[in-house]
Amino acid sequence: MNHPKHKNGILGRFAYEGIERVLHEKARLSIMTSLVTHPAGLIFTDLKELCTLTDGNLSRHLQILQEASLVEVWKGFQGNRPQTLCRLTVEGRKRFLEYIAVLESVVADALGAARDSGVAGKLAEGWSPA
Amino acid sequence: MNHPKHKNGILGRFAYEGIERVLHEKARLSIMTSLVTHPAGLIFTDLKELCTLTDGNLSRHLQILQEASLVEVWKGFQGNRPQTLCRLTVEGRKRFLEYIAVLESVVADALGAARDSGVAGKLAEGWSPA
Repeated sequence: MNHPKHKNGILGRFAYEGIERVLHEKARLSIMTSLVTHPAGLIFTDLKELCTLTDGNLSRHLQILQEASLVEVWKGFQGNRPQTLCRLTVEGRKRFLEYIAVLESVVADALGAARDSGVAGKLAEGWSPA
Repeated sequence: MNHPKHKNGILGRFAYEGIERVLHEKARLSIMTSLVTHPAGLIFTDLKELCTLTDGNLSRHLQILQEASLVEVWKGFQGNRPQTLCRLTVEGRKRFLEYIAVLESVVADALGAARDSGVAGKLAEGWSPA
């Protein structure tokens, strides 16, 4: 990425434009990680337990992911029981892995800083609490 | 972490309880990463440019982070110009690095899956779009 230079750093250096809000929301991040680790898909009840979500919350977030073409939802039967199957679309897998690459850069930035430096000391004189 | 076992995985395996919403929001993640990489603090205008935020948005998110005791905001002068200085609290640094460790586990889960498996093939018969 090319960032315009700036006197005290780089414009937008920590803006992380690749963080898509549709994927970044906590429950949806949980759903997407469950699904990317289960490429054949997950039954609704299993997905619910992996994410510790209620029926209502899982349904609501699945609908948002489905409308964004990231997840597919299928109806069918296992034995005689009607079931709902959820899995990533090809597009969903691609965009989620792109998002994960951005998270990886956030982690690298933060942990790099944590290694290089400690907690700040006392402020120079002349600063007062806002 | 101990998760109760479940027939088809582990209850809450992908729930990522350590994702604190106050830190996970995109703009605040950007602010916190900027500040953790600048332990001596950042002047408001520089922080704004690193995060590509407007004055109003940066102020609003700083207030939320300040109310959560994660960030300190100071008033002072550089030369004759009044300035606002922002930096992490000790607590803020600690909690942000804990949060980053959870993000690291999300990345590891997702990339592990991406390495191990590809895109799902055709569904077995009997499933229809929901």
